[in-house]
Amino acid sequence: MSERRSEVKKASLSLVERKQLAARNRIVEAADALFAERGFDNVSVTDIAERAEVGRTTFFRHFGDKTEVVFAKEQAMYDAITDATSVVLAPTQSLDSLAGALSALEPLVVRLCEQATADLAAYERHTLLLDANEELRARDALKNQYIAKELEKVLLKHNAPPAVATMAAQLALACYASGHSLAATPGDLVAETRAAFRSTLAMSSAAAEA
Amino acid sequence: MSERRSEVKKASLSLVERKQLAARNRIVEAADALFAERGFDNVSVTDIAERAEVGRTTFFRHFGDKTEVVFAKEQAMYDAITDATSVVLAPTQSLDSLAGALSALEPLVVRLCEQATADLAAYERHTLLLDANEELRARDALKNQYIAKELEKVLLKHNAPPAVATMAAQLALACYASGHSLAATPGDLVAETRAAFRSTLAMSSAAAEA
Repeated sequence: MSERRSEVKKASLSLVERKQLAARNRIVEAADALFAERGFDNVSVTDIAERAEVGRTTFFRHFGDKTEVVFAKEQAMYDAITDATSVVLAPTQSLDSLAGALSALEPLVVRLCEQATADLAAYERHTLLLDANEELRARDALKNQYIAKELEKVLLKHNAPPAVATMAAQLALACYASGHSLAATPGDLVAETRAAFRSTLAMSSAAAEA
Repeated sequence: MSERRSEVKKASLSLVERKQLAARNRIVEAADALFAERGFDNVSVTDIAERAEVGRTTFFRHFGDKTEVVFAKEQAMYDAITDATSVVLAPTQSLDSLAGALSALEPLVVRLCEQATADLAAYERHTLLLDANEELRARDALKNQYIAKELEKVLLKHNAPPAVATMAAQLALACYASGHSLAATPGDLVAETRAAFRSTLAMSSAAAEA
């Protein structure tokens, strides 16, 4: 019965929302192309709506402003974290220790990096856009903090101690930021982020050797 | 001779710049009070200039916009990192390992926290302002990334390997962010940040025990 209902829901969604989703995708693609052509500051919402062949009203149904379009993909990834929780954290993983909790977050963060760089050209355009615009970098830095908050919630949901959850989430973000900074090309993001987790988790033993 | 010259410079500065500094301080104090009274969005540059008894021209000589005033103190702290480099990192500290580099940054970050919370009431007002305004939180997140970049430069200047410098700076920022998040009151920021460094540096041994 509940399966039946969800099929009905899916079908009814597809009628109305398929068009909305198509419009949304056209907006994202149009904005992406226009920003790359003219630079973020030289593109208006009207320009984006025109290129996407939608009205301004439709634009504002999907996005609050043109900055939000830049982070449309991040938003989707961010939403995905909350959904994918139980899949990613193995139930046998001990989350009581900081190292355990950080290890548990690694596959989640790596998957985010994989998703972000699945389309390398798009990722590179996104990076160039941010490099050229301080306001977008600020927004990006804040989005990363929101992602850390989501990671923290995932750990808390799995009964990690609160201080461990907070710290592991911030360290996971630091590993991502390091990976991002150390990646020579977008294609290296995943490997560098993994390496940053490895180095962080191996830290104290390395210090003992020194 | 060079000492003499710096004395002359200091004397000449004090004539012109003392007034400028006084004006700058009045602007910061006026903005601080007005933001607390009315909220960030309901205060204009004209309001701030009037309260500070300076012209708008003087305001814009010191700050690009009203957002910059919010981070005036952070900017000073940020400048202080570069100056204080040699004082803070003991030359005997090994910066080749991640743990060594992270330990070396701890006193620097703790000192920043001490400076930030030296005036607890002002720090609390600053925090409330950020809590109420997403744009300011974005700017704050970006400032923290700039501070991480400065910490990285400090390590590089002391010949830490580049990857170690990048990672240690990001982990140090994570420790600060954790301390900030875990501090029940502004007065706890320093202790919680220290504790975050301790936990991070002790991480792997804790995992080995588990």
